[in-house]
Amino acid sequence: MVQHTPGQTIQTQVGIVGGGPAGLMLSHLLAREGIESVVLETRDPDTIRNTHRAGILEAASVWMLTETGVQGRVLTEGHEHRGTTLRYDGENHHIDFQDNVGQSVWLYPQNEVFWDLAQARERDGGVVFWSVADTAVHGIETDSPRITFTDAEGAGREIQAQIVVGADGSRSMCRQLIPEEVRTDNFIEYPFAWFGILCEAPPSWPELIYANSDAGFALISQRSDTVQRMYFQCDPETNAVDWTDEQIWARLQECMQGPDGFELKEGRIFDETVLKFRSYVCEPLIHHNLVLVGDAGHTVPPTGAKGLNLAFCDVRVLAPALVAWLRDGDESGLAGYSAKALERVWKAQNFSYWATNMMHTRQDENPFAQKRRRGELGSITDSERGRAYFSECYTGWQD
Amino acid sequence: MVQHTPGQTIQTQVGIVGGGPAGLMLSHLLAREGIESVVLETRDPDTIRNTHRAGILEAASVWMLTETGVQGRVLTEGHEHRGTTLRYDGENHHIDFQDNVGQSVWLYPQNEVFWDLAQARERDGGVVFWSVADTAVHGIETDSPRITFTDAEGAGREIQAQIVVGADGSRSMCRQLIPEEVRTDNFIEYPFAWFGILCEAPPSWPELIYANSDAGFALISQRSDTVQRMYFQCDPETNAVDWTDEQIWARLQECMQGPDGFELKEGRIFDETVLKFRSYVCEPLIHHNLVLVGDAGHTVPPTGAKGLNLAFCDVRVLAPALVAWLRDGDESGLAGYSAKALERVWKAQNFSYWATNMMHTRQDENPFAQKRRRGELGSITDSERGRAYFSECYTGWQD
Repeated sequence: MVQHTPGQTIQTQVGIVGGGPAGLMLSHLLAREGIESVVLETRDPDTIRNTHRAGILEAASVWMLTETGVQGRVLTEGHEHRGTTLRYDGENHHIDFQDNVGQSVWLYPQNEVFWDLAQARERDGGVVFWSVADTAVHGIETDSPRITFTDAEGAGREIQAQIVVGADGSRSMCRQLIPEEVRTDNFIEYPFAWFGILCEAPPSWPELIYANSDAGFALISQRSDTVQRMYFQCDPETNAVDWTDEQIWARLQECMQGPDGFELKEGRIFDETVLKFRSYVCEPLIHHNLVLVGDAGHTVPPTGAKGLNLAFCDVRVLAPALVAWLRDGDESGLAGYSAKALERVWKAQNFSYWATNMMHTRQDENPFAQKRRRGELGSITDSERGRAYFSECYTGWQD
Repeated sequence: MVQHTPGQTIQTQVGIVGGGPAGLMLSHLLAREGIESVVLETRDPDTIRNTHRAGILEAASVWMLTETGVQGRVLTEGHEHRGTTLRYDGENHHIDFQDNVGQSVWLYPQNEVFWDLAQARERDGGVVFWSVADTAVHGIETDSPRITFTDAEGAGREIQAQIVVGADGSRSMCRQLIPEEVRTDNFIEYPFAWFGILCEAPPSWPELIYANSDAGFALISQRSDTVQRMYFQCDPETNAVDWTDEQIWARLQECMQGPDGFELKEGRIFDETVLKFRSYVCEPLIHHNLVLVGDAGHTVPPTGAKGLNLAFCDVRVLAPALVAWLRDGDESGLAGYSAKALERVWKAQNFSYWATNMMHTRQDENPFAQKRRRGELGSITDSERGRAYFSECYTGWQD
């Protein structure tokens, strides 16, 4: 049993740094197999729950929530999207995922995924320390790595585990513990960011619209019957407070105008954020007794809607590997984790890079590049095979 | 009837500048519909026939040779390829065009396509002036454009036509006649060229292999049972004579080595050329009574094998448009020629750009870019939908 008394070292099998969806899902799956874990998270659960984050879940991610006993709320409160729309030259081009690959995706915010997992961990007696500080991981090259931290009450704590999992997000501290001599930081940056808003308006469209125009990229998304989520391409140095609501709506309308007379419904804006992004992959994802999952190991631009899904994919590979090692002494799954997870990561990185470049307009874009992108969009939307290829990437490659 | 006496103006309906495959095919198709044309070409036919040029013909291009009465030689002397191979990480990944899209392509050198067309024009009484010089086009903004030139015997000549077609290749003089105010030159360049060889060796593989490796791109192609065509990526400034045969084979072997033990068969090299390339599209393809077809209007890097096929596509759109205008006074086809031809051109430009970037290794490539390409190749070759999308692009979009 896990010890909770300050001053006493907590013994566990798996120490998980980071209580976002990746860390909590891993802890949940391990518990189902009788493997003990402790999760540490710097934030408190209400803060995470109330930080708006978009979310498109692949069917496999939905399955992980519903079929492993987390929660069924994604099916009742999320929205099944059987396709999506690419918009260019001011016209919508629908891509039907169900027709093309027999798969849907679900619109369900990441912060709700988090909440479902946090509640399930509490329900099942999982040990999660929220609002911790000073987290440090020690001895990952030994057989008994330790994590020290200060708990929410200000007491110094220590965990001793057999393995440590870094699920601590894109600014991962754990990742830095992999020595530079063995770590490759693969990354590229983009000359654009997303300006995201939440507004009180009815939906303008039943599914997501990814739009490209001379004014740049826009994404029309939904949240509920009365609240909508929208984004438009902006300079990464943009300060959200510099934009008036009138300017925001003018830009969004410019991105969505076209001969089809598409009507973008406006409403009171109550949240504005600039999302910077880049493409990043850490190689390898494992070093001695430290393993990385999710954003700690790789981040994608949001265009491909792959972030959370990739984190869950990592967990789908890692959980059985940890179980085999800790229960049966079989190291093979763990030894193969990095290569297996990265194979999918690189496909998703490619899709995210491709979708980002195809849908955004670069300020310095030469005429060839702009019209080539138009030809590429035509190759996808005008062709059953193009739509099928896009659909497979978007809904996620079947395991 | 066309007049052949020097000093007398030759009257015709369509003056065609350039006697390569595009110009000759257009002249051939027009003649079948009773439309007169005169073709001018600076080179002599033996020179063109003996200039080795690779050639992959889409099924629609083969059909234009066989079904319009040019020649059936492509079917007997060309080779049907029912698929192709992408090679990376030292392993072959086969893409079966027939399985995926029910189409084949044919390996048949462009210089043989030229010869078939030149012979057909001669057989059918077509008027072609070879070895001309000083070609100049006048009055394209009037109803009676003229072409002046010096014929092979050194006599000054003049053609008066209703319309002039520029089929004069990638260094097109005709293109320059479209005023800069109305013309957009869309282009991008690449930091690599192809080093091409012809050698006396048996085939190493029954179909083309497009290979990527740390040593760069290589293309293993065939010509006959005893002669092979191969290419490898090189710096555009490379001088072919600076490379010894040993260096050439060492590089090709390096590009093709792998755990599968692929055996590249060597032989005496008897032709070496450095092919520079870029992506280029002229917009529009028509200006008053001047129309551009083929390389005069657009050039592609050779990776997608699209050059000759795009030229034939232009001709498939242009020939009926010219017939409708010259015979029935219907201008609509001609008015729509540029937009219709360019829609396909931009898809082909995108495919050629994509295939080129996916298969070549950039000297300054960062680790992310290199591994993303590897993920992209996996997304194509590991997936039925990826293979189908690639096959559709490679075999040509069905009209």
